[in-house]
Amino acid sequence: MRAAIMNDLRDVAMGDIPDPVIKPHEALVQVRSVGVCGSDIHYYAHGRIGGYIVEPPFILGHECAGEVVALGSLVSGLSVGDRVAVEPGVPCRRCEFCAGGRYNLCPDVVFLATPPMQGAFCEYISHDAEFLFKLPDEMNFADGAMLEPLSTGIQAVKRSGMTVGDCVFIYGMGPIGLSTLQAFLAAGAGKVYVGDMRTKRLEMALELGTCEAFDVSQVDVVGEIRERSAGLGPHIVVETAGAKQSTLETVEMARRGGTVVLVGLAPDPTVPMNMLAPIDKELDVRGVFRYCHTYPTAIALVERGAAELRSMVTHQYDLEATPMALEDSVDPSPDRIKAIVNLDG
Amino acid sequence: MRAAIMNDLRDVAMGDIPDPVIKPHEALVQVRSVGVCGSDIHYYAHGRIGGYIVEPPFILGHECAGEVVALGSLVSGLSVGDRVAVEPGVPCRRCEFCAGGRYNLCPDVVFLATPPMQGAFCEYISHDAEFLFKLPDEMNFADGAMLEPLSTGIQAVKRSGMTVGDCVFIYGMGPIGLSTLQAFLAAGAGKVYVGDMRTKRLEMALELGTCEAFDVSQVDVVGEIRERSAGLGPHIVVETAGAKQSTLETVEMARRGGTVVLVGLAPDPTVPMNMLAPIDKELDVRGVFRYCHTYPTAIALVERGAAELRSMVTHQYDLEATPMALEDSVDPSPDRIKAIVNLDG
Amino acid sequence: MRAAIMNDLRDVAMGDIPDPVIKPHEALVQVRSVGVCGSDIHYYAHGRIGGYIVEPPFILGHECAGEVVALGSLVSGLSVGDRVAVEPGVPCRRCEFCAGGRYNLCPDVVFLATPPMQGAFCEYISHDAEFLFKLPDEMNFADGAMLEPLSTGIQAVKRSGMTVGDCVFIYGMGPIGLSTLQAFLAAGAGKVYVGDMRTKRLEMALELGTCEAFDVSQVDVVGEIRERSAGLGPHIVVETAGAKQSTLETVEMARRGGTVVLVGLAPDPTVPMNMLAPIDKELDVRGVFRYCHTYPTAIALVERGAAELRSMVTHQYDLEATPMALEDSVDPSPDRIKAIVNLDG
Amino acid sequence: MRAAIMNDLRDVAMGDIPDPVIKPHEALVQVRSVGVCGSDIHYYAHGRIGGYIVEPPFILGHECAGEVVALGSLVSGLSVGDRVAVEPGVPCRRCEFCAGGRYNLCPDVVFLATPPMQGAFCEYISHDAEFLFKLPDEMNFADGAMLEPLSTGIQAVKRSGMTVGDCVFIYGMGPIGLSTLQAFLAAGAGKVYVGDMRTKRLEMALELGTCEAFDVSQVDVVGEIRERSAGLGPHIVVETAGAKQSTLETVEMARRGGTVVLVGLAPDPTVPMNMLAPIDKELDVRGVFRYCHTYPTAIALVERGAAELRSMVTHQYDLEATPMALEDSVDPSPDRIKAIVNLDG
Repeated sequence: MRAAIMNDLRDVAMGDIPDPVIKPHEALVQVRSVGVCGSDIHYYAHGRIGGYIVEPPFILGHECAGEVVALGSLVSGLSVGDRVAVEPGVPCRRCEFCAGGRYNLCPDVVFLATPPMQGAFCEYISHDAEFLFKLPDEMNFADGAMLEPLSTGIQAVKRSGMTVGDCVFIYGMGPIGLSTLQAFLAAGAGKVYVGDMRTKRLEMALELGTCEAFDVSQVDVVGEIRERSAGLGPHIVVETAGAKQSTLETVEMARRGGTVVLVGLAPDPTVPMNMLAPIDKELDVRGVFRYCHTYPTAIALVERGAAELRSMVTHQYDLEATPMALEDSVDPSPDRIKAIVNLDG
Repeated sequence: MRAAIMNDLRDVAMGDIPDPVIKPHEALVQVRSVGVCGSDIHYYAHGRIGGYIVEPPFILGHECAGEVVALGSLVSGLSVGDRVAVEPGVPCRRCEFCAGGRYNLCPDVVFLATPPMQGAFCEYISHDAEFLFKLPDEMNFADGAMLEPLSTGIQAVKRSGMTVGDCVFIYGMGPIGLSTLQAFLAAGAGKVYVGDMRTKRLEMALELGTCEAFDVSQVDVVGEIRERSAGLGPHIVVETAGAKQSTLETVEMARRGGTVVLVGLAPDPTVPMNMLAPIDKELDVRGVFRYCHTYPTAIALVERGAAELRSMVTHQYDLEATPMALEDSVDPSPDRIKAIVNLDG
Repeated sequence: MRAAIMNDLRDVAMGDIPDPVIKPHEALVQVRSVGVCGSDIHYYAHGRIGGYIVEPPFILGHECAGEVVALGSLVSGLSVGDRVAVEPGVPCRRCEFCAGGRYNLCPDVVFLATPPMQGAFCEYISHDAEFLFKLPDEMNFADGAMLEPLSTGIQAVKRSGMTVGDCVFIYGMGPIGLSTLQAFLAAGAGKVYVGDMRTKRLEMALELGTCEAFDVSQVDVVGEIRERSAGLGPHIVVETAGAKQSTLETVEMARRGGTVVLVGLAPDPTVPMNMLAPIDKELDVRGVFRYCHTYPTAIALVERGAAELRSMVTHQYDLEATPMALEDSVDPSPDRIKAIVNLDG
Repeated sequence: MRAAIMNDLRDVAMGDIPDPVIKPHEALVQVRSVGVCGSDIHYYAHGRIGGYIVEPPFILGHECAGEVVALGSLVSGLSVGDRVAVEPGVPCRRCEFCAGGRYNLCPDVVFLATPPMQGAFCEYISHDAEFLFKLPDEMNFADGAMLEPLSTGIQAVKRSGMTVGDCVFIYGMGPIGLSTLQAFLAAGAGKVYVGDMRTKRLEMALELGTCEAFDVSQVDVVGEIRERSAGLGPHIVVETAGAKQSTLETVEMARRGGTVVLVGLAPDPTVPMNMLAPIDKELDVRGVFRYCHTYPTAIALVERGAAELRSMVTHQYDLEATPMALEDSVDPSPDRIKAIVNLDG
């Protein structure tokens, strides 16, 4: 089959590799749409994320959807021809994290395009059938791939412990931030405010959800939001930008007794935090790591119109153009939000 | 001022009574809209609810909104001319329930039209200013009165502990059921099913929210919903009808590990429940009593379009017609959902 | 090997059966202590519990501990010679309940002595190694068997959502009730009250934990406890007796906003409940079905002296006397709390 | 009455001031025991904590208990002669934090010895009667004063969201750390580990509770605890020392999915935190600010022997020696844990 193969830093070329073989509980999925994610770009440009190191040849891509073309002998509930979204991580099901209902923390998870596991910028992948989710007719394959960032947004909602009606601020309106915005609105947030530094992203936020959008390079958002919330600040502040300044601001902005949700990965993890603020305001600061149990929820919300995915896709490529899709994303144009690689059926 | 005065069972007549006097922390509200609620009708027809007994002359009505026309000396944050919704219960603020954040359980709450406290079918009421909530421009006074049933729906959501994406079934599509439907959708329910026996109400449900509606007099909903949910049943089953049959069915229908939320008051409280079901399925069965901290949430959801109130109002009266509004509601026509009494400004 | 074989209602005889064979992820356990549980007696006397029907020949017994004598090829973390408690239910690890962290609700669980799965009144059992828990030196095998009822008590604590300091009432001071008493005290309950009708059990309660004990056949406990709690009632009321009267009383006794925890299985599941009480008092009524993730907790609490198990064991038998152990338990003497069958090593 | 009056930094002298006057809802309390708290010493030595600035003459002291000697006209439920603990903060009861059940976050709270409110190193104080709690006979006044640090420990437990059986590590074994240790054990922690750098404090920890104690100046506790917990780390890590190094270590030590609880106030609030850790491990980092609803719980736990307070008191003074009690605490001897000022009745 054809695959986009990373041979070195910023060096991906198309090539032919053997088709995957499926195990009894797996399905063979013909890949139809794959999103280009920030972590793909990080591997592409830097060759590693933390302790995960790319050993070429390597295939990137983990936000994907496709069509079931073969089934292992133990698979039930799926049929050849099913259009499915692929939840990229398959956990061990036995460790205390799996048994405790938080499989996203499984230390033995196998996750697409996280070394040494290969990814999805190719024609076929084999995948555990329980982590394939049928797409309703109204959803296309790009929607299916976009369920991955929406899953992160839903995880952010769950981790936030939000009560319906809460006031929310979200830093960063990239694909994760926009998905988070939609997830909080779908889950009953009251007033929602968002911040970014790029006009296109703020415009997209206003298009996708009922919110107020601020250019954080122009406005002192901490003061601004405090003023709009009777001096109290939002119940929930979410950081999806992975930026030092916004991380610092989260604990300043949040309401006493409120919650800060950290989603975005900063290039430099060491941040000179004011650690008195979480005590003095009795805050909760909660991290989000991937997601668990979110795909059915994500599909249900999209199906009934409570979230909209495809308008976040600003750029599309075919499989043979995957090298360009990656290279274009390293230093993206201001209007770029999400790039998707589409494959013919 | 003019008031609709209950003199006996099913005997309400218009009359004149003295204007209310405000205390330092109260506002005088010119009443503009008052909903006719099931509890009003119960007092009207039976003279009592549990231990609360009407002693005529009595004024009914507790779902209301109006305009602030005078302020006590200690009131801040409100102005004459403000359009406000009235949260009908004013708690003591000192008991363990108030101090613990659940003021709806305050044993010393003073609640409009709950004897001996008089109600709102009259021109003016005095009310604690902290339980008056400013209406946004887009909301009219009928919307303001309808925040009361929506508050009950929001309380049902909060008590349900719903996780975004959960599958929900709601018994009863009267004003409380319809409000509950909207609250669950606004709060991120996945699939939502509803049941009632009246066509008009099922139609209204389909109009107000993305759901599937069943005539429970025609369909075995327990079996039907189980089939549609992979044999599992809904995560959450809400009873708003106050009917014995649906109360019995709640614990049969709910998914293992799921939650039953009881809202509707049955005429006969003794129900031959299957008490093995909550154990065998490890269910939570949770009651809802009025609401607390819901008005700001209700307003925020209506303001951003996540809930719609006025289309539930099927019948309108002016103050002088209050006796008819009550009498018409005793044995309501099939198309009657909510009646509102409106007063000129 | 020797086994106590149930051939008919109230007909158990000793006999020889083949030794069990272990699968790769299982261990072979030489049984050393097995408790006689109420469900064993129910199968023994009635042949069924709900839809679970004994097909003789059948082996009862599920509360057990023993010594590891052989290991399957895939087992790690256990050694031959380890003294272990046996958690009797082995779930599928794949269904939504397992994946969601509540494996006690797994519809495909295989549970010792729940038909068609055979039980532990025999010399050896094979068991999934992940459901075997090493006993600290201070715990004997009878303690290990008694971790099963303690697990139910811990599950009751978890399900209750107790806040440290809460006032608790527990109906029923059999082995489950006494375990529940200890679990609530270990978990930081404030005032604890208990009720039973048998003097021996009330005495045992007073011995095992700091509580006040009431003979519910002599005292109006609802009134009595209300008086002792400033008219409010306990935050948490637990029913472990499986009695109709106490089930009815739970919702009367509980404090407004409180929680009722149902543990005991009633012979007749239909109870004429006052379903207005959960609404009017905004109660939570929560069922307990077995337990999950409790064995490590139970061991930790016993190890540090926060729970004491062996004094609940009032009667001991050897394996050959199992028929008598069961028969004696059908209509137990007033001083009988827990009978254990012990096997030599 | 006599009072210890702070006139300048490290300058407290005894003097006479007018007796306090009580308001209708207050009681007059003859002070009998007052603890010397770290915040008292901070005001004494530095004159301020954050924005709270001492304006001399000022009276320190907020951990106190005494005897009721007079009652305001609106007080019920208390009698002259009652021995009471004083909860030092009286909130407004009306703001959203009070109404929401978290009165410790009330911005208008009046708190003993937090400027401009005077404290309790004097013969009499007036105090809102609802924040006075009767002491059981077994508790002396020093115990009553020590309920304040125990309250902080209980708040740490509540904020931690601990599940019974969880493994806990606590940094710092001063009075707050020792109280926190006892609170976690009382609330059902499983394995508990503690760390400090002073031998006396580690010894006291071992005396007061079943735990393992580490000298963090000698042992790499992060590695050590990880090894003892199957490589996973504690479910809950509590920081009570207010030290930079331990604050940094909290997020390294905690188990994936675990919780960090921040209690100790650091002299320098800016800490170069690894903000990737809370995301990668999906941690909760939760601050603790004072306490709410803890006094009845604290009394109940002490009353039934689940916590022991008086052995933490290593030094005692009479009122006239208050200046020495404060000065001795600035640079405390290694064996000093808690100093109490006692007054005759």
